[in-house]
Amino acid sequence: MQNFADRLLAECKRKKSLVLVGIDPRKESLPAEHQKLASLKGWAEAYKIFGREVIDAVANVAVAIKPQVAFYEALGPDGMVAFQDTLRYAREKNLLTVADIKRGDIGTTAEAYAEAFLSDDALFPSDSVTINPYLGIDGIEPFLKYCNRGKGVYILVKTSNKSSVDFQNQRLQNDAELFKLVAKKVSDWGQPFIGESGYSSVGAVVGATWPEEAKELRQLMPHTSFLIPGYGAQGGGAKDALASMDAQNTGGIVNSSRGIIFAFDNEKYKETASKNGWQASVAQAAEDMRTDLNESAHPI
Amino acid sequence: MQNFADRLLAECKRKKSLVLVGIDPRKESLPAEHQKLASLKGWAEAYKIFGREVIDAVANVAVAIKPQVAFYEALGPDGMVAFQDTLRYAREKNLLTVADIKRGDIGTTAEAYAEAFLSDDALFPSDSVTINPYLGIDGIEPFLKYCNRGKGVYILVKTSNKSSVDFQNQRLQNDAELFKLVAKKVSDWGQPFIGESGYSSVGAVVGATWPEEAKELRQLMPHTSFLIPGYGAQGGGAKDALASMDAQNTGGIVNSSRGIIFAFDNEKYKETASKNGWQASVAQAAEDMRTDLNESAHPI
Repeated sequence: MQNFADRLLAECKRKKSLVLVGIDPRKESLPAEHQKLASLKGWAEAYKIFGREVIDAVANVAVAIKPQVAFYEALGPDGMVAFQDTLRYAREKNLLTVADIKRGDIGTTAEAYAEAFLSDDALFPSDSVTINPYLGIDGIEPFLKYCNRGKGVYILVKTSNKSSVDFQNQRLQNDAELFKLVAKKVSDWGQPFIGESGYSSVGAVVGATWPEEAKELRQLMPHTSFLIPGYGAQGGGAKDALASMDAQNTGGIVNSSRGIIFAFDNEKYKETASKNGWQASVAQAAEDMRTDLNESAHPI
Repeated sequence: MQNFADRLLAECKRKKSLVLVGIDPRKESLPAEHQKLASLKGWAEAYKIFGREVIDAVANVAVAIKPQVAFYEALGPDGMVAFQDTLRYAREKNLLTVADIKRGDIGTTAEAYAEAFLSDDALFPSDSVTINPYLGIDGIEPFLKYCNRGKGVYILVKTSNKSSVDFQNQRLQNDAELFKLVAKKVSDWGQPFIGESGYSSVGAVVGATWPEEAKELRQLMPHTSFLIPGYGAQGGGAKDALASMDAQNTGGIVNSSRGIIFAFDNEKYKETASKNGWQASVAQAAEDMRTDLNESAHPI
């Protein structure tokens, strides 16, 4: 199968889009009709239907979706059925997927996670996953073999949250912060998986909330594809999100979750939602994000 | 509900045991009868029955069990039903549980994980979970509120694997390694949750494979209860595992997974298994581990 980074970039070009839609279903935020569905058939069924309908709404604009497994796990095994359905449905609709699992373990345990999400007969079939580097290469290696088979990983480097500074920004003895060492390792680990696009299937999570750091990381990791969270609801603007892009504005995708999937609750989209339904507001928010990012091309 | 660290220590004293049994089911390693069961009813059913039977075999000796979620996730939603059953069955048998999930995320996502495992109506009901510190306090805080309600967390500090040195052993500008800063923070975060035993419900994962580091960590974290992996199959002996104990040999529990649950495959226990069945070999291995640890009391 074609290199994941190449597949992703081809989708970005085809759709003229850098948009990654995070699917983070939350009971209290679902549309009224799904609240009703939940009361009849349970929350897992509501999450499943909501996921499918979000995918339908954004399929023309988003290059990929990123379901967050935590919200499904909170519903127990039934929730995991909905999570599985969302991943499978996205594939049916030719949308790439990032399973946002942030797993990090070692040896046979990490192999089991990789099997669950990236293997050919994975029960939670995903094109890529997010993983945590704290355990070192032992926790990464079991995922890498799938990077030879069209799959990708995004390793947490500099996360979007405030307290990412607690450990990630600790300065080492060479005066560089820890996240830069992680970046260096991620870049090294990704070398064997660089595709024709010049990008590796071993990517990095780099928050839009840290534009200065992101620019430095781009220099340190010229062949690394970034997953950029923190746009929109978390406070990052388009220019911040694109700070780490290269001159062609390739090299990454930008995530928004709440800002897209719950757009019907946003003053800006309420009219669209009431006229044309909640899905129309979600589609419009995704379209507006695509435009916002494309108009803010920010070569470094 | 009583403080988790107090509950744990009371169990250690009652059972005169520091044994934590890791339940890491793997298809190729299950007893012949479970392989057969899998061919009839699927692997998830085999994992479920195996989990119950391991619990029955070790219930008198182990203070807690630690199922590893990755192996269940690899089986998809059905696997998560088995994982749920194992947690529920352990509770029925009055065994404490550590859900080995090593989750690490932020905000509402971390809250969703905490809800899934530690809340009163958690669908994967656990007394404690393992979590990853790379994202800082944002990723920890949502779990802490449950430490006021009888639940516990074990934060990865120094993991047992070789490549834990990749990042955890990076020296900071004060010349101390990163894992010591993590230790300091874990100790601080745990202060409000110190029980009558003198230990906090905010614990630390400290590998038995690093006895020198473990001794230093005990000094840095006098009120922190340790979860000590790496005994047995991973190469740590009893003295190594107990290097971080205090003078009373309290302050932690020691995990073994493969060495216990697949004891029937170990030359040492093959005769017991063939005479009295695989469960007898598992019970014997747990009993031997208890004895080994108790005889190696290693005051620091």
